Amino acid sequence: MQGQAQQQAYDRGITIFSPDGRLYQVEYAREAVKRGTASIGVKTTDGVVFAVDKRYQSPLVERESVEKIHKADDHIGIASAGHVADARQLIDFARQQAQINQLRYGEQIGVETLTKDVTDHIQQYTQVGGARPFGVALIVGGIEDGEPRLFETDPSGVPSEWQALAVGSGRSEMLEHLEDEYRDDMDLDGGIGLALETLSVAGEDAFAAAEIGVATVDVETEQFRELPDDEIESYLSEYDLLETDETDEE
Amino acid sequence: MQGQAQQQAYDRGITIFSPDGRLYQVEYAREAVKRGTASIGVKTTDGVVFAVDKRYQSPLVERESVEKIHKADDHIGIASAGHVADARQLIDFARQQAQINQLRYGEQIGVETLTKDVTDHIQQYTQVGGARPFGVALIVGGIEDGEPRLFETDPSGVPSEWQALAVGSGRSEMLEHLEDEYRDDMDLDGGIGLALETLSVAGEDAFAAAEIGVATVDVETEQFRELPDDEIESYLSEYDLLETDETDEE
Amino acid sequence: MQGQAQQQAYDRGITIFSPDGRLYQVEYAREAVKRGTASIGVKTTDGVVFAVDKRYQSPLVERESVEKIHKADDHIGIASAGHVADARQLIDFARQQAQINQLRYGEQIGVETLTKDVTDHIQQYTQVGGARPFGVALIVGGIEDGEPRLFETDPSGVPSEWQALAVGSGRSEMLEHLEDEYRDDMDLDGGIGLALETLSVAGEDAFAAAEIGVATVDVETEQFRELPDDEIESYLSEYDLLETDETDEE
Amino acid sequence: MQGQAQQQAYDRGITIFSPDGRLYQVEYAREAVKRGTASIGVKTTDGVVFAVDKRYQSPLVERESVEKIHKADDHIGIASAGHVADARQLIDFARQQAQINQLRYGEQIGVETLTKDVTDHIQQYTQVGGARPFGVALIVGGIEDGEPRLFETDPSGVPSEWQALAVGSGRSEMLEHLEDEYRDDMDLDGGIGLALETLSVAGEDAFAAAEIGVATVDVETEQFRELPDDEIESYLSEYDLLETDETDEE
Amino acid sequence: MQGQAQQQAYDRGITIFSPDGRLYQVEYAREAVKRGTASIGVKTTDGVVFAVDKRYQSPLVERESVEKIHKADDHIGIASAGHVADARQLIDFARQQAQINQLRYGEQIGVETLTKDVTDHIQQYTQVGGARPFGVALIVGGIEDGEPRLFETDPSGVPSEWQALAVGSGRSEMLEHLEDEYRDDMDLDGGIGLALETLSVAGEDAFAAAEIGVATVDVETEQFRELPDDEIESYLSEYDLLETDETDEE
Amino acid sequence: MQGQAQQQAYDRGITIFSPDGRLYQVEYAREAVKRGTASIGVKTTDGVVFAVDKRYQSPLVERESVEKIHKADDHIGIASAGHVADARQLIDFARQQAQINQLRYGEQIGVETLTKDVTDHIQQYTQVGGARPFGVALIVGGIEDGEPRLFETDPSGVPSEWQALAVGSGRSEMLEHLEDEYRDDMDLDGGIGLALETLSVAGEDAFAAAEIGVATVDVETEQFRELPDDEIESYLSEYDLLETDETDEE
Amino acid sequence: MQGQAQQQAYDRGITIFSPDGRLYQVEYAREAVKRGTASIGVKTTDGVVFAVDKRYQSPLVERESVEKIHKADDHIGIASAGHVADARQLIDFARQQAQINQLRYGEQIGVETLTKDVTDHIQQYTQVGGARPFGVALIVGGIEDGEPRLFETDPSGVPSEWQALAVGSGRSEMLEHLEDEYRDDMDLDGGIGLALETLSVAGEDAFAAAEIGVATVDVETEQFRELPDDEIESYLSEYDLLETDETDEE
Repeated sequence: MQGQAQQQAYDRGITIFSPDGRLYQVEYAREAVKRGTASIGVKTTDGVVFAVDKRYQSPLVERESVEKIHKADDHIGIASAGHVADARQLIDFARQQAQINQLRYGEQIGVETLTKDVTDHIQQYTQVGGARPFGVALIVGGIEDGEPRLFETDPSGVPSEWQALAVGSGRSEMLEHLEDEYRDDMDLDGGIGLALETLSVAGEDAFAAAEIGVATVDVETEQFRELPDDEIESYLSEYDLLETDETDEE
Repeated sequence: MQGQAQQQAYDRGITIFSPDGRLYQVEYAREAVKRGTASIGVKTTDGVVFAVDKRYQSPLVERESVEKIHKADDHIGIASAGHVADARQLIDFARQQAQINQLRYGEQIGVETLTKDVTDHIQQYTQVGGARPFGVALIVGGIEDGEPRLFETDPSGVPSEWQALAVGSGRSEMLEHLEDEYRDDMDLDGGIGLALETLSVAGEDAFAAAEIGVATVDVETEQFRELPDDEIESYLSEYDLLETDETDEE
Repeated sequence: MQGQAQQQAYDRGITIFSPDGRLYQVEYAREAVKRGTASIGVKTTDGVVFAVDKRYQSPLVERESVEKIHKADDHIGIASAGHVADARQLIDFARQQAQINQLRYGEQIGVETLTKDVTDHIQQYTQVGGARPFGVALIVGGIEDGEPRLFETDPSGVPSEWQALAVGSGRSEMLEHLEDEYRDDMDLDGGIGLALETLSVAGEDAFAAAEIGVATVDVETEQFRELPDDEIESYLSEYDLLETDETDEE
Repeated sequence: MQGQAQQQAYDRGITIFSPDGRLYQVEYAREAVKRGTASIGVKTTDGVVFAVDKRYQSPLVERESVEKIHKADDHIGIASAGHVADARQLIDFARQQAQINQLRYGEQIGVETLTKDVTDHIQQYTQVGGARPFGVALIVGGIEDGEPRLFETDPSGVPSEWQALAVGSGRSEMLEHLEDEYRDDMDLDGGIGLALETLSVAGEDAFAAAEIGVATVDVETEQFRELPDDEIESYLSEYDLLETDETDEE
Repeated sequence: MQGQAQQQAYDRGITIFSPDGRLYQVEYAREAVKRGTASIGVKTTDGVVFAVDKRYQSPLVERESVEKIHKADDHIGIASAGHVADARQLIDFARQQAQINQLRYGEQIGVETLTKDVTDHIQQYTQVGGARPFGVALIVGGIEDGEPRLFETDPSGVPSEWQALAVGSGRSEMLEHLEDEYRDDMDLDGGIGLALETLSVAGEDAFAAAEIGVATVDVETEQFRELPDDEIESYLSEYDLLETDETDEE
Repeated sequence: MQGQAQQQAYDRGITIFSPDGRLYQVEYAREAVKRGTASIGVKTTDGVVFAVDKRYQSPLVERESVEKIHKADDHIGIASAGHVADARQLIDFARQQAQINQLRYGEQIGVETLTKDVTDHIQQYTQVGGARPFGVALIVGGIEDGEPRLFETDPSGVPSEWQALAVGSGRSEMLEHLEDEYRDDMDLDGGIGLALETLSVAGEDAFAAAEIGVATVDVETEQFRELPDDEIESYLSEYDLLETDETDEE
Repeated sequence: MQGQAQQQAYDRGITIFSPDGRLYQVEYAREAVKRGTASIGVKTTDGVVFAVDKRYQSPLVERESVEKIHKADDHIGIASAGHVADARQLIDFARQQAQINQLRYGEQIGVETLTKDVTDHIQQYTQVGGARPFGVALIVGGIEDGEPRLFETDPSGVPSEWQALAVGSGRSEMLEHLEDEYRDDMDLDGGIGLALETLSVAGEDAFAAAEIGVATVDVETEQFRELPDDEIESYLSEYDLLETDETDEE
């Protein structure tokens, strides 16, 4: 009871520390991330890979409208997990930053610079009163100076660079799988395979192509590209993750 | 008791997360939507269909003044469910965005663009303090590049695209009916029929024409059009949903 | 006890939803309307009729100063029920909107446009923090394009059009009477009669002329006109509602 | 206990409605008025009369400094009851409005216009947050178009016109006396007599001239005029209200 | 317990009325005045007299720095009691008003005008949120049109004019003494004597000159003047109020 | 329990009075001063003396960085006790005021003027909401018109002038010592001795030179000067306050 | 229970003092610092040394992205401990201050000036409402006028200069070690050794090079320089702190 009363005090005011130096609202925003469906990012020798769980509330929802992977700039993609409307705000912010960079300096924004612009924005919402933190984690990936880069933004506003990562529901199990299976000499195909396998770790054994989103930014073209359903189906099939018809009818 | 006290804490401050990562005020705004009478949207090969329950508190109310379907632009309609005065604000906002687009770019606003302008506006009211969320869900439908598009905006500020959807009182039962009966090769007539049948799922077996509103935006004319009573009566009659006189006199 | 504590939470913050999706402050503002003396509006073939209960706290009050019916523009009248000082603010706002319309567009404002300007204003006070809702309902009536129009504004900011309506103390009984007796082919005289009868439904059997206010906007002159006491007395007498001297002396 | 807890909730936030549609802060401001010494206004055929109770905390207070009747403009006086510092603010506001009117339109402000300017100002303090209502009632009286006018402003911001009225401590008893004794054919002398008698209803049987303030605005001169002590003494004597020396020594 | 809980509610919000129409924060500010050492003002035929208790916390304090009497303008002095830092703000405000008057109108500010400028300023802090009331009472005295004037400002913002008054610790006893002993034909010498005697009523029987401050504004010179220690000692001696050495050594 | 609950109410809102007329936040800020290490100021015939306790948390701290005495202008020094970061803000404010004075009037700021600029600044933080009071007391000393002046600023914003004073931990004992030993014909050397002795009253019997800071502003040079360690050691030795090596090794 | 309730009161409002003169929010921010991994700073005759614990949550995190040591300007480095996103804000602020100094004065900013700019910024967040304090401590080190300088900023906004210091988890044990082992004639190599040994005091016995960050600013080049892994490995090996393979495999 005492613990609960104490906790309530910190819940009400968003911008204050608890006696043990924690920011509860930021930690609760992390819970909002955990409530979201999973997103995976993998860095390979050929480029970065995004894979996301796009399962939706009703078959009547147009699956293209389930926004989990976004193009931030020609050479940068962003996958998200958590509060969807918050994710949209951060994506919009990222796109504006990319355009401003192009206009001001006549060149594409770096992946790291873009990530840090976004995390600075996120941090403001954790310190200044009158608003709540963003309840979303982003995976920001792309090509910078010919090299693939892969970042995470968390609700406290910390940027971190990863070889491979997972956010959203089932993160712990997925990260464990990635740590076991990731090799830094993977190519794009291998990265897609690892990403799909990792998605299956946290829940379903098999997916329909429509339930999955996959995108890449490769070092050759430096272009963000979302894979069509048939390509996704090939990969699912290759990794024994394709839902069979019987399953589908169920 | 403990649960209740905890919940109160989140009720008071609108822009904060609960320990499990939820935004209670947004969820309560969804309850306001559920308290509203039903609105239906169906996408067909020929265009989009809106059908709404216009039953009113008194027979003395002029039924044209029961605002459930609105013209946002020549080629876009919006149906709403929930807090009526909030809906009016969002409709006004949508109309302004449509006009601004016309003035700035000399062309009609896209259905998706308009929807996302509205959801960005909605999201602000869920994150920044000093105001409450909008207690309304909108169905935004119209023609874009010759194709019918149909979107939903929810109180958290998430846009989603649907083949057919229902908002307001009885949503679950209505969505179930739509999932069972919707076919993507339906024409406008079929869509109107499905919409009217779906309205009857959640409550009444039959309607007077005056209790129902129907509107369409077809791909040929790209014009928003509200159906007159006699047309509605024909459809109700065709689908055995027309209230007979006996019922009327009751 | 639990219910009461919960309710208090919503009372304190005006712009938040309750768990069941209601806005308590708006509902309490409706109670303020119910505490006000009754006002009636009736739409007839010849024009609109307003009738109000002007009984006052003391015989020393100058009855002209009991403001229940107001001229908003030459062709539009407004009757009110509820918190009197709030009503004055909305009337002033309506008059300004009418003048602005005249100045900007060189023509009289429409009854519907004026009503919606007012309800938009009302809605703001229910969503944005730092103020309370208006505790008043208005009946806005007048002539638009040669046709009589009759609207209600409620404390949530919803406009609705009526054939005949009542606001304030005794609304339910009065609406029931109007629903039973209203005919859409009534002329102005009949409308005045119906309005006076309806006023008597909720309380007194008879009135002195000084206790009643009546005004009309007819389609011919399109002029707001308050009836003098002798005309009111004739109508009261005609409908057997005139207080006799004995009653008066009592 | 329950009632008290509930009441506290409304006390804290000034701009909110209680579940029964009341504004407690405004009602408490009315209590501040009741705590003030009485002020009387009487309208006669010859002009308006103000009479006030000027009894003070100490005989060392200069009685001219006990501000209960104020000149708002040449032709308008204002008497007050309630929180004295608040009254001063409203009087200042009224004087400014009178001057602005003179400057803008080159003519004296009307009594009704001035009253309504003041009540609009008062209403703002009851709806918008960040301030409390004014704890004062004013009697505004003067000559307009050759006719005497007499108004009251209450803490909710409602203006009302009276033939004769009383505000402050003992209002109920005083109003009752006025209702019994007021005649609309009274002349100024009669009005002064009635006002003095009414003051004595709520408390003391007799007054020293120094304890009373009397002022008039007559239709002939249209000038606000405060009566000197000897005139007041004559009136007190005429109406058997003059404190005899024995009483004085007590 | 009930009373206490209720009281707390009013303590927290400074700008609200209690159910009985009181402003607790203003009343508590009056307590701050009572906690201050006493100040006396006396109006005589020759001018105004200020006398103050300057006893200080330590003999190491330079007694000139104990600010209890201030020159507001050449012809106006101000004595204070209560929260010292608040007094300094009001004195500064008064001096600015005096200078502004001189600059704008080319003449010295009137004592009454200055007092009312100050009380208007004080009132704002009792009505508008975001600040607390001033915890100080001022005695404003000077010459206006050749006549001595003596005013009080209280924490609610009410100005009042006195023949003689006392503020601060022991006010009741001191006022009683002044009421008994004051005569309106006193000269400056007599006024100083009365003021010193009054100071001794509330506490000490005798004073060292250093513990007392005395100032005057006389009608002849119209100049504010602080009396040097030897003059104060003469007066103390004359009125048998001078502390003997034995007392001093104690 | 009752007392505690009541006290909490005043703790939360910084700018409100308690029922007995106190400002708790200001009193708590005084506690912050008492938590700080001691600072002493002594006024002598030759100038002012500052002495401060500079003991620090770790021997690794560079003792010059322990800021307890500051140069505000060439001729004015300031010593502080209490919340260190707050002190820095007030020192910066004082330095700016000194520079502004030099720029505006082409002359050095007076010690009293500077002190009052600072206390006005402090007072604002005790009356206006949105910030807390400064938790620091300053000793402001220097030469003005050839005379040494020595002031204190306290957290309520009251300036006071002293012959000698102490602030911070042990103030009562130190003030008592100063009252016993201070003579107003002391020269600078004597003042330094008294200051050092006073520092030892509240705690340690002996000091290392590094643990003490001493500064002076003498009437001859009118320059602020911090004493080097060897001079401090001489004084400590002269007054038998120098820590011997054994003590040091302990 | 009493203590806890009292504490809650101070937790909620960030800018208020507790009855014993403490600022709880600042103290809780210090707890946030203690939750961070350790950072060490050592001042040597040749320059300043930074050493930090870079252990991370997952082996998939790119270790360069673990930001613990930052270049603030060519000649100044900053190491941090505590809330990472807050540290990033202060680093950005420091870099801007360095650039502004270069632009305004055409010269490099001093280490002390930069530190105090940062602490002034930090202090604002502890006094003015609407935001929380920064939950981070910084070690600011560099070369100023040819001399190494080493500062700490704490969450209250106090700057202090050190010979050697540690912040973050295990500070007490590490400071003790530094106090025992620090010699002011150490060269850079010795400083690096001491820093690494100190890191090992608070936890691990041995480190992989990848788990440690080391940087220097030497007096010769006056350039901030981060050591490559092989140099770190050499130092770890030299001081017997290198993790062996067996440990690594564990």
